[in-house]
Amino acid sequence: MNAVQSTTPPQKIVILGGGFAGVYTARYLEKLLRPAEAAITLVNRENYWVYQPMLPEVISGSLALADVVSPIRRLCPRTNLVTREIEDIDLENRVITVSPGFRPRQLKLHYDYLVIALGNVTNFYGMPGMLENGKPFKTLADAMVLRNHVIRTLEEADVEEDPELRRKLLTFVVGGGGFSGVEVIAELNDFVRAVKKNYLRLRDQPHRCVLVHSRNRILQEMAEPLALFAQKTLRKRGVEIILEDRLVAATSEKAILKSGEAIACKTIVCTVPSTLPPVIQKLNCAKDKGKLQTNTGLELKDYEGQVWALGDCAVVKTVSGKEAPPTAQHAIREAATAATNIAAAIRGGARAQFSFEGLGTLGSLGHGAAVAQILGVKLSGLLAWVLWRCIYLMKMPGLNRKTRIATDWTLHLLFPPDLAETKLEPESGIQSQHFQAGDVVFQQGDLGDSVYVIQEGECDVLREENGEHKLLATLRAGDYFGEMAVLADQSRNATIQARTGMHVLIISKRDFDKLRQNVPAFDEVFRELAKRRASGNAVIPSGSAET
Amino acid sequence: MNAVQSTTPPQKIVILGGGFAGVYTARYLEKLLRPAEAAITLVNRENYWVYQPMLPEVISGSLALADVVSPIRRLCPRTNLVTREIEDIDLENRVITVSPGFRPRQLKLHYDYLVIALGNVTNFYGMPGMLENGKPFKTLADAMVLRNHVIRTLEEADVEEDPELRRKLLTFVVGGGGFSGVEVIAELNDFVRAVKKNYLRLRDQPHRCVLVHSRNRILQEMAEPLALFAQKTLRKRGVEIILEDRLVAATSEKAILKSGEAIACKTIVCTVPSTLPPVIQKLNCAKDKGKLQTNTGLELKDYEGQVWALGDCAVVKTVSGKEAPPTAQHAIREAATAATNIAAAIRGGARAQFSFEGLGTLGSLGHGAAVAQILGVKLSGLLAWVLWRCIYLMKMPGLNRKTRIATDWTLHLLFPPDLAETKLEPESGIQSQHFQAGDVVFQQGDLGDSVYVIQEGECDVLREENGEHKLLATLRAGDYFGEMAVLADQSRNATIQARTGMHVLIISKRDFDKLRQNVPAFDEVFRELAKRRASGNAVIPSGSAET
Repeated sequence: MNAVQSTTPPQKIVILGGGFAGVYTARYLEKLLRPAEAAITLVNRENYWVYQPMLPEVISGSLALADVVSPIRRLCPRTNLVTREIEDIDLENRVITVSPGFRPRQLKLHYDYLVIALGNVTNFYGMPGMLENGKPFKTLADAMVLRNHVIRTLEEADVEEDPELRRKLLTFVVGGGGFSGVEVIAELNDFVRAVKKNYLRLRDQPHRCVLVHSRNRILQEMAEPLALFAQKTLRKRGVEIILEDRLVAATSEKAILKSGEAIACKTIVCTVPSTLPPVIQKLNCAKDKGKLQTNTGLELKDYEGQVWALGDCAVVKTVSGKEAPPTAQHAIREAATAATNIAAAIRGGARAQFSFEGLGTLGSLGHGAAVAQILGVKLSGLLAWVLWRCIYLMKMPGLNRKTRIATDWTLHLLFPPDLAETKLEPESGIQSQHFQAGDVVFQQGDLGDSVYVIQEGECDVLREENGEHKLLATLRAGDYFGEMAVLADQSRNATIQARTGMHVLIISKRDFDKLRQNVPAFDEVFRELAKRRASGNAVIPSGSAET
Repeated sequence: MNAVQSTTPPQKIVILGGGFAGVYTARYLEKLLRPAEAAITLVNRENYWVYQPMLPEVISGSLALADVVSPIRRLCPRTNLVTREIEDIDLENRVITVSPGFRPRQLKLHYDYLVIALGNVTNFYGMPGMLENGKPFKTLADAMVLRNHVIRTLEEADVEEDPELRRKLLTFVVGGGGFSGVEVIAELNDFVRAVKKNYLRLRDQPHRCVLVHSRNRILQEMAEPLALFAQKTLRKRGVEIILEDRLVAATSEKAILKSGEAIACKTIVCTVPSTLPPVIQKLNCAKDKGKLQTNTGLELKDYEGQVWALGDCAVVKTVSGKEAPPTAQHAIREAATAATNIAAAIRGGARAQFSFEGLGTLGSLGHGAAVAQILGVKLSGLLAWVLWRCIYLMKMPGLNRKTRIATDWTLHLLFPPDLAETKLEPESGIQSQHFQAGDVVFQQGDLGDSVYVIQEGECDVLREENGEHKLLATLRAGDYFGEMAVLADQSRNATIQARTGMHVLIISKRDFDKLRQNVPAFDEVFRELAKRRASGNAVIPSGSAET
């Protein structure tokens, strides 16, 4: 596994990425090549493969967390798995650099043949506040974080006395009306409706599930009648669908749409924007709209016979010239083509060309309803839903997982969905947050649980006295606020309201205290501020605010 | 739910804690009292109840994460659940203060009758480095964190080339030979042995599981022949048992025993020390060794007829004068007694006295073996194991959970244990770490991924040149090191070795960069250091080290 060039067999094949494309390439290669011919290594961040089509069912707990993933070591028993991050791809010297593990040293992997199947990653660039408040929906962690967040909002709504805040807690917004967005809003709606019964104060409260889509109908990938059926079904189940509009920004209190509409809510899921992984972005080779450019044998341009690219990070064209969509069924066939061609490169033989044109599309609309378009036949409703479950169950590799999923589904028909919040680690570290003009950061009387540093924008410091709001100061980029209450362990003695769009850094009381105690210069900054403020002058000097 | 005194029915009953004692009190009260008589509120940090006896099975994945917990709202459908932390108990004014939720405001709950059933918490006080490196085993999060950590060590061991580090990664130490410690080491050993097969480079590597216990035999709660049987069974399965010794300290590289023995390892589970929750520690009332003092009706001394205390946070004595041990079977009976007495206080009637003397004890030794001592009969081996499973399955409330657990167990008999690492959130925030004299913090050539601040102790800065180690400086409390490599994004240019026992604060590169960019004073401290160092003088000024 050291960076030593190998010229004799076994040839070193390195696969980057453990999604459908990467894992199936390894599986096909294990079948095609003997151990003496090739040593296969797969690099993936996680030691499991995620069965993407079933991911939305994690939200409601229809499927147990561990049942929508499968250990890569069991799927590809002959492949060496390296569970690390990929930091660099050096196509000239044929070396892959991966991140350090327990010991902070990088690891270098040499290859004779390389498969790049790294998929894409969520990208909220250009959407202010989305990184902090929007929830992506791509990985297992995303699904679990969303599930726990939704349960947390229900718990809070049940305790909350303020009807406005309770309405926010019970509003769920999903951006993007593709398969992923539709399945997420359907699951969310089913789940909230089912578990609300167990919350004594929420039983009779309405909840809102809103789907926002930029086109004039959802499910662009399907024929119009099916998409319209899906819209009708979702609306009948209580989902609001907003068409020809889209999410552009978010704060901790609302989702903001392009039309200017703002939806007050505490849950925003954004399924739309994705980009290529940074390690591919910095790769210097032929690209097409950022994606890796390949021929019909899936070889990377200028590296034919040495590097293959497939899945969502590559432009894959069939022999008929059509571009393959980013679906599991295509990724699996691409893997077969790539594996055949790698085997041919090692031991000679016929090369394959990618010619799969797709079998159809399937989308779930929540419990008991789906839309399907398979080999030209259109189906909708319960029948499509049963078909959806059968097809995906069949496609799940391994008897163990098949049995578990079938059991989960059966129990889910008999019992209500689970509502345990299995949040395992507290959120910590230094966070960022975005506020829009007019938003309140905290209110006079709130507990002082963190310190803020303005990175961008301006805010007003307001104090309420005898029912009147008095403007104490205006703070700008580089100013701090909120440390007074944290230092004295008191509640806030002023309200902070954003004057413009504003980005802040939030240091929790826990981290703030640790830093103050151990970095004297850090402590001094804030003690200096406190002193200036204690002198009690109405004009607050720049770099501070009496809060 | 506001802090307003109520004098008319329904009476306000508040239960603190959602373990066996708290949840069963709510369940009994729901049966005994009509909604018009009592409004029941339960406060717990989580919205689920953990079935403690089955927790060790989460490690191996025999039981799915969600199957060892049950939503409290389903167990006690008529009880108002408040999922927050308890910050204060005011016995004089009958008010409970709970932590803030989404909005940073505390919530106050008034009660007419109070049940305190807060259990105990893990406490590593007086064991240097245990907080940072020892893993507790009490909560669902503890079990999941341990499972993920063990899988992570296997993943790393599979990649690691250094045989010494690989041995450390494959060594697992558990402190405490009570039921919890024994069940954890048995599960760990079974799990590692079963999944090692799937790691190509680990198949033939030995692993070590070490149990450390302070007495001359494990399972002090059981008769000696059963404990000796348990020791023999564990040893036959490859577990090393160290008796009459105990864990006293830990670093990231080893477990340190009282005898002075150090076991090089990356996994330390410490099941022993527990203490009362801080909110009870600060409570001013009659106590016995820190625990709440009660009468045989489970009433808190001096608050009879108003406050009940039960479970692990109270000293509960039966009418015969024996102290009740902290087990589930006792907690459930204590709950029945307390509920009966609360109902009697509200509507009159006979009061109950706690008189349960225990049915016996059960302990699992891993797959297919257990020890049991029930109603005077002693059992061991497979029969005891089947009995263990039957009894605990019967005691699990709810058909849904019973079915799920029975299914999990059946599948676990048929298929190998799961090995997906479902770690969901990255560790972040400002961490602490403990080093012993002689320990290396980082080595010259390592990647610079964090900055260190010495809180306590001393360390040497060593540079290797032409095979020789040169002492560059000695650093003390308040000094920083490691920032050089982080600032320049380079590898470490010196080795740091602890000279004495040393506590450091570790700021990750991510947090360090955020702070530097936003808090100019913080940035200046480190820029000043860098400048001083760039001048290249051999004597390094205090407060800095060229690393």
